[in-house]
Amino acid sequence: MSIVSAMTSNTAVRLARRPAGLPVADDWLIETAQVPDPGPGQFVVKTHLISLDPAMRGWLDDRPSYLPPVGIGEVMRAMTVGEVVASQHHRFGIGSMVLGTFGVQEYAVSDGDGVTLVDSRLGTPSMYLGVLGTTGLTAYFGLMELGKPRAGDTVVVSAAAGAVGSVVGALARLNGCRVVGIAGGSEKCAYVVDELGFDIAVDYKAPGLRNALNQACPDGIDVYFDNVGGPVLNAALGNLAMGARIVICGAISQYNAEVPTPGPSNYMSLLVRRATMSGFLVFDYASEYRVARKRLARWVADERIAAPETLVKGTVSDFNDVLLRLFRGDNVGKLILDVTPG
Amino acid sequence: MSIVSAMTSNTAVRLARRPAGLPVADDWLIETAQVPDPGPGQFVVKTHLISLDPAMRGWLDDRPSYLPPVGIGEVMRAMTVGEVVASQHHRFGIGSMVLGTFGVQEYAVSDGDGVTLVDSRLGTPSMYLGVLGTTGLTAYFGLMELGKPRAGDTVVVSAAAGAVGSVVGALARLNGCRVVGIAGGSEKCAYVVDELGFDIAVDYKAPGLRNALNQACPDGIDVYFDNVGGPVLNAALGNLAMGARIVICGAISQYNAEVPTPGPSNYMSLLVRRATMSGFLVFDYASEYRVARKRLARWVADERIAAPETLVKGTVSDFNDVLLRLFRGDNVGKLILDVTPG
Repeated sequence: MSIVSAMTSNTAVRLARRPAGLPVADDWLIETAQVPDPGPGQFVVKTHLISLDPAMRGWLDDRPSYLPPVGIGEVMRAMTVGEVVASQHHRFGIGSMVLGTFGVQEYAVSDGDGVTLVDSRLGTPSMYLGVLGTTGLTAYFGLMELGKPRAGDTVVVSAAAGAVGSVVGALARLNGCRVVGIAGGSEKCAYVVDELGFDIAVDYKAPGLRNALNQACPDGIDVYFDNVGGPVLNAALGNLAMGARIVICGAISQYNAEVPTPGPSNYMSLLVRRATMSGFLVFDYASEYRVARKRLARWVADERIAAPETLVKGTVSDFNDVLLRLFRGDNVGKLILDVTPG
Repeated sequence: MSIVSAMTSNTAVRLARRPAGLPVADDWLIETAQVPDPGPGQFVVKTHLISLDPAMRGWLDDRPSYLPPVGIGEVMRAMTVGEVVASQHHRFGIGSMVLGTFGVQEYAVSDGDGVTLVDSRLGTPSMYLGVLGTTGLTAYFGLMELGKPRAGDTVVVSAAAGAVGSVVGALARLNGCRVVGIAGGSEKCAYVVDELGFDIAVDYKAPGLRNALNQACPDGIDVYFDNVGGPVLNAALGNLAMGARIVICGAISQYNAEVPTPGPSNYMSLLVRRATMSGFLVFDYASEYRVARKRLARWVADERIAAPETLVKGTVSDFNDVLLRLFRGDNVGKLILDVTPG
């Protein structure tokens, strides 16, 4: 074991109050305290990379969901990758790189529960937040378990340039599907086709989304993987093929809404098209992560999955600014705050 | 073969124009013409009973759906039971009682396609429009194939006093479920519990539906069978148990809306509760009708299914008035226009 220097301080981002709409700087409290030494069975992680995820916004609201909300005064919940710098744990020794829900802070103490060792043979540390992390696993289990793609299917993915969407598109192509991406603006649409290998892209910011989708999917949509909700989901519901599967993964268009957003008025096409709309959470597939991660790693190595990422250099204090990039939609691939020293 | 008398006239209800909102008398044209003789392989049916169904409203709108809309000038589509009065058909002889989509008219000529013989050992002619007809089969396949009820599940049914809802409730109880009915007003709620055997009823017209459902379903809703849409569907989505199945059968609250009704804003609980919302059409199960009909008939004979019906005596010209009863919600069980002579 090694003792963390008593001089070492930990800066953490804590929730000061619940945001109304988009989070602002005053919603957070940035506090510095001393890093405690690890007790028996514990270790200390120094944060390198912090994952930014649309779901974070939901964790800030005080309402029942799949996880309890982040409490006022608590360190903001986040998946991170870091290095073990002190340890009294038999499995996580000093120098190990680990993935865990360590929060938006420079250091964290852990007993190893829910912590995964980064295996450098599979991928880089940042890939453990992206394609090999919750992001890629969400794409994998959502598409394969709920979307049930078959060769020849038309698969439509919203937020196609995003962390989850880009992987869904690649996996759908691997499964022999025709893949249509929905993204915002002509630049992102070009990126989705040219860099990510989608067959076609549809710009949701252009007028006439429902008709544009209809033209892009002349045989209808067999699988719609939804990350955004709102009018985009509604347009997709208006273009379903018979027996379509709609996978509800997220609803980023709604997370910052200050009044409830209308639901999808076209939901009755579920009946006309004998379709199914299902929600899921990746955590339910935890026992299958290991196998899925190996597959995803192999496909990345074979360049069958592009796995783009946007790393932003900074400190934990930059968390709110970087989070807002997600909701502005001005990043592509996995968004990560890189707080690695130096 | 027997020839229909050249004196016999057929009064038919034809669509004069597409209704805006609730259909009115002027939306229909009531025309009388001579009944043609049946050609080779044809027979003539004299209508006895006309089924009134919420889906009829959808058939009047000019938009793509699971069946083409009724055309302007065409006889209104309806399931009916009638008696064969003239025949050149080997299977449907004079005196046979038959079930078919013969329309809102006194006589129809048919080649037997899609026509079912009424088997009096299974039930009465009116039961062939209700519990043994599309109504009961819709309840049976929707609940069993999509709802997948298991003993101990909490099953919630909207329009519980209606034709489909009453059968769904009975089938859910047969499968060992706890059954909660949603109905409008205290009288109907009492009926649902006292006459139909639901465990509990919730009045959707009383304030606080979401909370009332929460109290009626302390462990959450495992299966929600929806016939109504709108705020009732939304309240159910707010009370799902983990892994819930929502069966979209109809949306009677929306069929007469003149502006698009909002979709269910609580649809994101599909994700939180890992739930599935599916639509279906009973026609897809046509190959299994025979077996299902025998089962339903046995349960009715054993008084395990109540199968209530409301027969209104009249002529085909009363069609619109009787149809409106459905949308006012002032009938219980299967609503039938009885045009049997005498």
